Order: sequence, then C-alpha cells, then structure tokens
Amino acid sequence: MKKASSLSELGFDANGAASGFFRPVAADDGLCTPTSHRRRLTKVSVVGAGNVGMAIAQTILTRGLADEIALVDALPDKLRGETLDLQHAAAFLPRTRLVSGTDLAVTGDSDLAIVTAGPGETRLDLLQRNVALFKKIVPALAEHSPDAVLLVVSNPVDILTYVAWKLSGFPVSRVMGSGTNLDSSRFRFLLADHLDVNGQDVQAYMVGEHGDSSVAVWSTVSVAGMPVLKSLQESHGSFDEEALEGIRRAVVNSTYEVISLKGYTSWAIGYSVANLVSSILRDQRRIHPVSVLATGFHGIADDHEVFLSLPARLGRGGVLGVADMELTEEEATRLRHSAKTLWENSQLLGL
Amino acid sequence: MKKASSLSELGFDANGAASGFFRPVAADDGLCTPTSHRRRLTKVSVVGAGNVGMAIAQTILTRGLADEIALVDALPDKLRGETLDLQHAAAFLPRTRLVSGTDLAVTGDSDLAIVTAGPGETRLDLLQRNVALFKKIVPALAEHSPDAVLLVVSNPVDILTYVAWKLSGFPVSRVMGSGTNLDSSRFRFLLADHLDVNGQDVQAYMVGEHGDSSVAVWSTVSVAGMPVLKSLQESHGSFDEEALEGIRRAVVNSTYEVISLKGYTSWAIGYSVANLVSSILRDQRRIHPVSVLATGFHGIADDHEVFLSLPARLGRGGVLGVADMELTEEEATRLRHSAKTLWENSQLLGL
Amino acid sequence: MKKASSLSELGFDANGAASGFFRPVAADDGLCTPTSHRRRLTKVSVVGAGNVGMAIAQTILTRGLADEIALVDALPDKLRGETLDLQHAAAFLPRTRLVSGTDLAVTGDSDLAIVTAGPGETRLDLLQRNVALFKKIVPALAEHSPDAVLLVVSNPVDILTYVAWKLSGFPVSRVMGSGTNLDSSRFRFLLADHLDVNGQDVQAYMVGEHGDSSVAVWSTVSVAGMPVLKSLQESHGSFDEEALEGIRRAVVNSTYEVISLKGYTSWAIGYSVANLVSSILRDQRRIHPVSVLATGFHGIADDHEVFLSLPARLGRGGVLGVADMELTEEEATRLRHSAKTLWENSQLLGL
Amino acid sequence: MKKASSLSELGFDANGAASGFFRPVAADDGLCTPTSHRRRLTKVSVVGAGNVGMAIAQTILTRGLADEIALVDALPDKLRGETLDLQHAAAFLPRTRLVSGTDLAVTGDSDLAIVTAGPGETRLDLLQRNVALFKKIVPALAEHSPDAVLLVVSNPVDILTYVAWKLSGFPVSRVMGSGTNLDSSRFRFLLADHLDVNGQDVQAYMVGEHGDSSVAVWSTVSVAGMPVLKSLQESHGSFDEEALEGIRRAVVNSTYEVISLKGYTSWAIGYSVANLVSSILRDQRRIHPVSVLATGFHGIADDHEVFLSLPARLGRGGVLGVADMELTEEEATRLRHSAKTLWENSQLLGL
Repeated sequence: MKKASSLSELGFDANGAASGFFRPVAADDGLCTPTSHRRRLTKVSVVGAGNVGMAIAQTILTRGLADEIALVDALPDKLRGETLDLQHAAAFLPRTRLVSGTDLAVTGDSDLAIVTAGPGETRLDLLQRNVALFKKIVPALAEHSPDAVLLVVSNPVDILTYVAWKLSGFPVSRVMGSGTNLDSSRFRFLLADHLDVNGQDVQAYMVGEHGDSSVAVWSTVSVAGMPVLKSLQESHGSFDEEALEGIRRAVVNSTYEVISLKGYTSWAIGYSVANLVSSILRDQRRIHPVSVLATGFHGIADDHEVFLSLPARLGRGGVLGVADMELTEEEATRLRHSAKTLWENSQLLGL
Repeated sequence: MKKASSLSELGFDANGAASGFFRPVAADDGLCTPTSHRRRLTKVSVVGAGNVGMAIAQTILTRGLADEIALVDALPDKLRGETLDLQHAAAFLPRTRLVSGTDLAVTGDSDLAIVTAGPGETRLDLLQRNVALFKKIVPALAEHSPDAVLLVVSNPVDILTYVAWKLSGFPVSRVMGSGTNLDSSRFRFLLADHLDVNGQDVQAYMVGEHGDSSVAVWSTVSVAGMPVLKSLQESHGSFDEEALEGIRRAVVNSTYEVISLKGYTSWAIGYSVANLVSSILRDQRRIHPVSVLATGFHGIADDHEVFLSLPARLGRGGVLGVADMELTEEEATRLRHSAKTLWENSQLLGL
Repeated sequence: MKKASSLSELGFDANGAASGFFRPVAADDGLCTPTSHRRRLTKVSVVGAGNVGMAIAQTILTRGLADEIALVDALPDKLRGETLDLQHAAAFLPRTRLVSGTDLAVTGDSDLAIVTAGPGETRLDLLQRNVALFKKIVPALAEHSPDAVLLVVSNPVDILTYVAWKLSGFPVSRVMGSGTNLDSSRFRFLLADHLDVNGQDVQAYMVGEHGDSSVAVWSTVSVAGMPVLKSLQESHGSFDEEALEGIRRAVVNSTYEVISLKGYTSWAIGYSVANLVSSILRDQRRIHPVSVLATGFHGIADDHEVFLSLPARLGRGGVLGVADMELTEEEATRLRHSAKTLWENSQLLGL
Repeated sequence: MKKASSLSELGFDANGAASGFFRPVAADDGLCTPTSHRRRLTKVSVVGAGNVGMAIAQTILTRGLADEIALVDALPDKLRGETLDLQHAAAFLPRTRLVSGTDLAVTGDSDLAIVTAGPGETRLDLLQRNVALFKKIVPALAEHSPDAVLLVVSNPVDILTYVAWKLSGFPVSRVMGSGTNLDSSRFRFLLADHLDVNGQDVQAYMVGEHGDSSVAVWSTVSVAGMPVLKSLQESHGSFDEEALEGIRRAVVNSTYEVISLKGYTSWAIGYSVANLVSSILRDQRRIHPVSVLATGFHGIADDHEVFLSLPARLGRGGVLGVADMELTEEEATRLRHSAKTLWENSQLLGL
C-alpha cells in the first residue's frame, strides 16, 4: 500500500515510530516484527480483476475471510483503480492487507489461489485461448505458492481445472473448480422460494459437467429431511419427468439469462466462491459440489482423468473426500458421457 | 419473486401448503399471516441500479441490514439482470425479500430510501438534468413512504439533498446526503495506513461541500486520543500548512483517480453508504459527517437554506443532532463561502 | 439506563444538548424524536435471569438480534448485577437498549417474549410450582405485549407451553416451546462429528416430547442428501435397532450429563434459543423442531390439546406451518402415547 | 472430541471413510491430511474454566476467532461439563475444534494463551497464592507453545503479568495483561451513554495500575474529535476536578458493584478479552490500554521492571508499540508512584 509522501513531508514517519506516537516496549528486547509471525496469516490471491474476480475479492473482504488479499490482472490501470476503490473502504472493514500487481509474484505464499482469468462467460468455444493463458498463469502461481489450494473459476471450468492440475503439478486434493456449486445453490433457492422455506433447509445437488449437460440429482432432494420425490409420489401418485428436466434447464439457463440482461454475472458467483473460500480456509468440512478428479466414481473409466462436479468435503487441505452418492442409471450414464467427451477434448490439448 | 411455474406443474403448490409438506397448526385458529406483522420488518429502497446503486444494495444484503430491499431503475433489462444475479445468491445470505421495478410503487412503505440516480460521477455540470430527474423521483418516493428517511447519494450531493428536501416536504431531520462521509473515511485511512494503526483508532473529519471545496478539520484529528497537530508541533516545532492542504487535496482527488483508472467508483461508496444505513436503521447514534441543513452553523446566514456536511448523530429518526465543532476562522470562512455559492445556485433552480 | 449524576454535575447535560456538543438541525423544524420511530425497533424480553436466561440474553446481544432487550427477574440484586455486567460490554457490541426490572411492565411492546423462569433443570416434578409461577407471569406478559410471539423455555417445556397458550389467550401460532430444538442439534452434531462433516450438511430431527420419551426420526436423517439408514443398509446389509436407540438415549442423557458435571446447562441452550429468535425476528422461514399444538398430527386425537415438538416453519408471525413428516408406525405410536399422557396431566391443572 | 462408540457399532466408521459416504479423490495420490496444513490454523488456549474463563471462551467461539480452542482447569468434572455444554452448541457456530484437559499439554502449539486461573476477583491480597499457581502454569505453557502470545487476566493483573513474563522467558512484546482495557471501555460507555452517542465515537483511556490507583486521562478524552475538557471549559468557564475524580472512581467501583450484586463478573470481561484476541490474532493494529512493560515511559525508572497499562498497538506479534501519550504532571506522578510500589512488591517475590 503506497504511503502518502506528503504525510512524511509533514513530519510523520511511517509507523509513527519517529513521530512521537509509538515506541517499542523496551529498547534492549526488540519488538517481535510482524514478519516473524507472517506464516500464520491467511492469504488469498485472485487472478483476474474483471467483474467475477472483483465480486469474489469484495465478498472475501466484506466477510473478513483473509488477512491478506492479492489481486492480479494484465491491465494495470483497471487493476489499480479496483485496488484503490477497495482500499478506500478500509474504514468499514476489518483490517486486511491488499496488494496488487500485473506480476504473479504478488501472490507469493498464498494459502488459496483463485483463477478467474479468461474471456468472460462463454463457456464452450474459447478453450485454446484459455489454455494458453493458463500456461502463463498456473506454473507461476504454483511456483510462488507451492502449498496453496488452487480454485479454478474460469470457463469451461471442468476442463480448465484439469489443465490447472496438470500445469501445477499439485496433488489432486489441492486442485478444484467452482463447478456446479452455484448451480446447486440456484436449484436449492428455486425449491426453497417455491415452498417458502429457508434455503438452508433444502438439500439439493446438481453434479457432473458445469453447463448444459449438468445432472440434477432429484433422488437426493430433501426438505427438512423429507425426500421431495417420495412426497410428490405419495401426494400425487406420480411426477412428471419432463417437468423435472424443465426445472434443471431453468437453473442452467439462469446464468445465460443474467448475461443477456446485464451483460455478465457477478454477485452470485462472488458469494458462491467466497463460500467455498470460507469452507476451505476455516477448515469447515462442508460439503460442496465442486469439480474434482472423478476417475473411478460412478463407473467413470480408470484411465480417464477428468474433472466433474461431485459433492466434496472441503477443508484447509482442499478436497478431503468425495461423496459416493447414489445415482440412477440414467444419471450415471450422463456423467460417464460427459466424462468421455471431456477426456477426448482434453487429449487434444497436448499437455 | 417469481414462482417457477414448472414446480407448480410438478405438483408442488406455493408455500408447500397442498404438497403435503406443511400444514397450519390448528384449523379453527388460523395462522398469523406474515402480513399482519409486516409493519415491523425493515425495508430499504435503492433508486438507481448502476454501479453505485448496486454496490450499495449488495453490501446492505451481505450485511443483512434489511428484511426487504426494493430496487428501482429506468432500464428494465439491466434492473432484472441485477435483481436475478442477487437472488441467485440467496443460499449464501440471510433470507431477504428482494423486489424490483421501473415503477416507484415497489418502494412503498420503506424505512429508508436511497437515491443514486443520475448521470454518473461528474459532480458539477449536470445539475439541471438531475433536478429534472429528482422531480420525477422524490415526490413519488415521499408519497409511497411518507415516514421514510431520505438519503441522497447522487451528485452534486449537497444541492441535490436540498432539492430532495424541498420536493419531499419531509422534516429536515429526515433528509440527508452522503456528503463527505466517504471522504472522511479516506482521510482516516490515509492517516491510519501511514501510522500503521487501525482506522478505528483515528478520528478525522472532512466537512463542508463535497468535492473540491471540502474542509479537512485538522484541528480535530486525533489518534488514540492524542491530537495529531499538537504532537507534530511538539516533535517538530512546526508543521507545514501546505503539506496539510496537499493531503486534503489527495483525499479529494482519490475519487477522480479511481474514475480515471476504472471508469467509475463503486466499492468504497457502497460500503460507506451501507455504513450510514446501519447507523440509521439500527439506531446506532453514531456520528457521521453527512450533508444536513447547515443554516445557522458556523455563521452561515439564517436565511440561507443550504445543505453541507457536518458531523451528525444518526439514528432511526434520521439526523438526531449536529455537532457544533470548533473550526478555525479560515475553515469557517470556507464553509460560509460554500454556503453562499450553493445558496445562489439553488435560487436558480426555481423550486 | 441510569445517567451518571456526576457527569451532569460536571456540566454535561444529558444527550449533550446543552453541553455544546450537539444542536438540532433547524430550530423551527423540530427533530424527529426517537420515540416517533420506536414502533419499528425490535424488542425481546427474557423472563428469568438465571444461567439459562442470561446465556440467551448474552447471545442475542452478541448477535445483534434486537434493538432492545428487557430482562426480568424476581431477585433485584442478581438482576441488576447481570444487567450492569452486560452494559459494561457496550463498547464491544452494536448499540442495544438494555432495560431490566422485577416488574413485567419493562417488557411492554415486545416482539418476542421468552420465559425461562422456574426452578432449574429438573423437568418432571415441579409442574405445579411452575404453573403457579406462569399464572403470575404469562397474563402480565400478554397484556403488556399483545402482539408478541411467546417462546417457553422452562421445563417441563411441552406442558408449560400449553399452559402459556391457555393463560395468554394468544392465537396458537404465536406460542411455542423450545422443545427438542437443542436435542436435534445435539443429534445432528453427534452424526456430523462422527462423519467429520459440518453439522449444516446433516439433516436430523428429534421430535415429540422433550426428555426421555423423545423420538429420533432416523428415517429422515440424511447427509448431503444421502439417507443414512439406506446407506447403512446397503453397505452393511442391516442396522442394529438397539444401537439406534442407544444413540437417541445418549442425546437425551447429554443434558443430564452436563448438569451432573457443572451443575446446570447454559451455553448450548443459549445459542439454541438465540437461533430460534433469529428465525422468528428476521422472518427466516427456517424449519425448527419446536413445541407446537400437535392436535391432529400423526393421529393425535382431535380433542387432545397438547404441545409436542414437530418441525415447524418459523417467521415473524411465529409458527407459519408444521411439517407433516412421515413417521414409522412405532414412532407415531410413541408420539400418540406422549400426547395422551400430556393431555391427562394437563387436565389436572385446572386451567 | 470423543467419538460416540455406538455410532461405530452401528457400522459407521469414523470420518465416514468406510461407511460408503466419502472416498478419497484418487487412490494413488493420497489426500492432503488436515495435519499437513495444521500450522496455519489458529489456536487459542484458555487456562481456568471459571466464570471469567468461560465467558472469554464462549465469546471467542461465538465470534469465530479461532480454529481451535483449548480449555484447561484443575477440576476435571467442571471442565468436562463446560466443554460438553459448548460442544452441544456446535450446530449454531462456525466449526471450531474444542479440546480440554487438566494437563497443560492440550494447549500445545497455541498462538495465544490466556491465563484466567486464580482465586476469583479480589485483586490485592492473594498474590503469593497466585504466584505459586503461575509457577505451575506459565513455564509449562511456554514450553508447549514457545511462539505464543501470553495474555494474563488473573488479578492483581499488573504484577502477575510481570510474573508471567519472568517465568515464560518470552520477549516482552509477547507478554501482556488485560489491564485497564475493560475499565477504559466502561469509561467510554459512561460518557457515550450520557451524551447519547455511540461508544465508538468516544476516545477515552484509563491507564496505569488496574484497580484503585488507575489514571483516567481526561486530557485525551474526545467525542467525534472534539476534546471534552476544552469544550466544558468553553461552555462553563471551568470544570470541577473533584467531579472528574468522582467519575473515575465510579468506573473503578463498577467492578466491585457487579461482584457485590451477582457474586462475580463475567460478561464484560469476556467481551473485553475476546476483543483483544481479535486485535492480536487478526493482526488489527488496534490501540488498547493493556498492561505492558512500562520501564522508561513517563519517567518510570530504567531499572524498575514493572507492567502498567498504556495504550498499545496490538497485532499478531503481540505488542507492536506503546503510545507515548501526553500526561499531566499529576497523572505521571501517579504512574510513577504505582510503578515504585509494584516494583517493591515484585522484589519480594523472589523470581
């Protein structure tokens, strides 16, 4: 954080040391410099200061989830403007160190690095450009923070999480993608809003590939412990498969709807990723559907290294375990189909 | 909040009433409908869903400051996109009702109405356009929420707060402008950052007209109860008036700097206004420098009805009192000069 | 809150009005007195300043759930000591008005009144004494706050909630007992801790009569949407009914264990009740197993007016609905048995 | 945290590993065990599970300030009861590891260790007993957590902080006492309440020896940046020295008043210490009047190693600096007098 030179000119020295404000407790003893305790402070890096990256950084800041936040972007003016704008809010927030730069060196010694870089929200067609970008970003990130957890938000998220894993050389438990975590929240909200209950009382997951091929696991949806499908079956005799699929599609389309209306998405993805950050950094052992190495789950072939969203238990170590949830044969088939496509596509990347 | 029609088709009825999920406790007794308790819930309206309005709304939402938030904007698509984006985050937030519309009727029965509408951040030259806009907005706001507190954020903020007061017909204690509240925070942060202390231990105010003519009240700046100027004088024999003015200018210019770098400001003003919202709605009696009717303070003429920022004690009733702080003769002169200019300008508005 | 007389002697007048600190904004306009906006502020009363009542009040205060808290107890010294001890912490908390007295008049105009009075934690044998106490407390509470929600914590909670309902004359949706809300949390924690997941990912309810006859609804227990019993059955072929009952008993006994070790319970019930307060006052529509009028649910006879814990949707209006959850025949039988016993006992009270 | 054996009997294995719930992401890769990241988690120990220690622990837990809390007490039943009571609240709190034991080994690798042990609230006469106790506790604490910050709450706090410093062998910046932090808050509250402003807008310090000889530094008291004494002088021509002293005495006596009414103090000291914990562990650089090595400040002799409360800047490294505030000659004399007495007393301890 830049020191205002005119304050120094005024006679204030940095830290108030020589300005008559503060003195160390005892001359011969020495103060414990902050540095000596740095290793215990929590640092999060956000790569990409666009709408998504900034919404994430701002929510992390508001919630006081980190002692230090590093922002990286290729555009120095935009980056400095966003950093100053956040710094001006310091009086309203718990004290957090904010650093930024176009060089990934500012991310050094992060506990968690979040990659949002890439050309916006179109998920499917920009793979090669994003892979090229990741080749610049990920190895540098990994080098500067060899113990970090890596969280990929850029799209297409599943294949880019695989790319980040490969490029980082990290153990697979320390690499994940935001995946269907936000889709699941929207799914949950849709049900909660309709039943007029709080979303926290609804358990509902979307899994698999983020985007059009995602799978809404209806069989596990429950409200206050009551399975929703079973309840429907008992009260109505049956339920309409097509209506279920219509709801899934509405959830998937809601991203596109927001993009078509305001040009991009930001708030919901910001909260959603900050929620993952909290589970990881505060070691919460919460279960989130995030993109993890899915090899061997639900019949996905043992030689297919693909990342797909499955309910995963998250903590300070990253992915602590993956729930072996029960899927219908049709749901598992869709997962395997996504896995096959993703594997074939990833083979073309030449990593 | 729109109900997903396909859920109804599926057999779920709204509120789960007929879906076998929930029943009232006793048939002959009737449930207390939420409506009957509505009067106690807290509602905030934000008029203008641009960068500033949305940063305010999002921070209010994150901090759980209101039970209901109403968003108003003239652009229906942008408005619906922003509203949906916030709604998709429902799972990560305390349950808050979110309504929006291009019609000010959605703001009905607000406790607090915040006006951010207007053409962006240039403060000086767009007065007539904004006055025309306020003529459409403020009387309607006042009619729909006759007991609300009115908080003006649009620029030029001092004169527009006067305009809002006149147009609303509200008692003056229920109309204020965001004024120099954010400038004061930046001032505080600059000092805190330089001395490496927490901003909460620094008391420092900027008062007067928001913008180039604001007054930094150096004589009241204290850190941990120690007056800063006195301390400087004792340790250095004197202090440089020009350096002081340089710091004030740096604070004023920081807004322009952010605008030149990222194109607009959003985060800091969002936190800053949310902070005012908290003091007002939670009746905190905190002291904030906000734009209030300054007639009679510091020698401002009794027939000049002008709004300027002075330290004001805020609570549920709005402005509960204004601090009669000690100013140097030069500081008071600048205030009176601002008052005179503002009064002359406001006379031309034909209100 | 008592004003320190010596400050007045010093020349400060109350509210700083005449001390040169604050002035109203404009003489002829008048300040909006706080009173005129009082109706929108949130007030909670806690009757009984023992270990349970104080843990509840302190958690409400820490969480900033109310604008005003009223404490009532029969012992004036204890009450004043507790009130002062909380007031001394004001600097660390959001500003909250704290009033206290031996007279129930201090609870006037509450939104929520919580009754913790009664001779400690023994649940079964002190009914008549507590009924006598409730005859003094409840009608006065209801008179001073005719629109309040009533929350009974005193034991035996189910029958005393019935007593409070009868004595208050309130609609049944505005009377509830803390019931098995805490037992359910303990149940949830036991499962979460064992599986090393966050308790928020476990849905598990204990219902029925608070205490030895409570029912753990194993069939609805799910982790991340996966039914636990089904999962056990699939991985182990079966599950041991006795082990299930052992777990239920461990949950029930944990209260007794804490009492035998430290003499009383306080922290957990404090958090648990504050959690209900949040759901009610912030209109959260969360589902909690609390003691509600259970007539007609699960085959409980239509002429038996008994209160038992069932999952209820809570909001500003109190109990907004009760979940019609699926019970096994054995579980329903236990509920009906509890209902019969409670009804017979309540007939002897002569209300 | 003890695992419920009956859950294991039921077929659940710990961590859900073998129960079909969770699997590692990839067999050959290995999961990052939580242990490998333990060093970044934050641990606080509280020695003494009496009213003060428990109020501190509970507030730390509510505020989510630590990832792990260790409780130590000599009475195993009381300790286990308190620990269970907190654990039962897990569902309402961020996930925090809670360990307890009569052996100080459970405090191992703490970032912060808080000593509340000792015979209650009488400050003056129990020195020798507490020194004997500290000889058992402090060296063991220091050995188990060689990098911790040590925070002494036991009374008489100033001399016991000196004792803890000597016994720990820690650098002086890592040893402090709660000192007059709470007295200062009460002082602040008294002024804020009288002026009907929020306590956060009042800067007011009590320094020196905790208890009857403390010094209220009236010259530094300011409200919204306005010096209170100066304002009084201007509005009333003078102020009454005796009235000022009366207010100081009222603040000092308020502890005794609470003790005489409820038998002990707990809530305010709990919040007050948790506030210090937040400033230290979150590296907030806030200024608190705490007991620090005062040698060389305000003319205290260079060979007198005494601890007294002075405004200190706190962060992760402990005491980062001490404010060299301006005192009147009379105030400084009182400080030197306290210093002399404390030094003479400490010489008798034979450390």
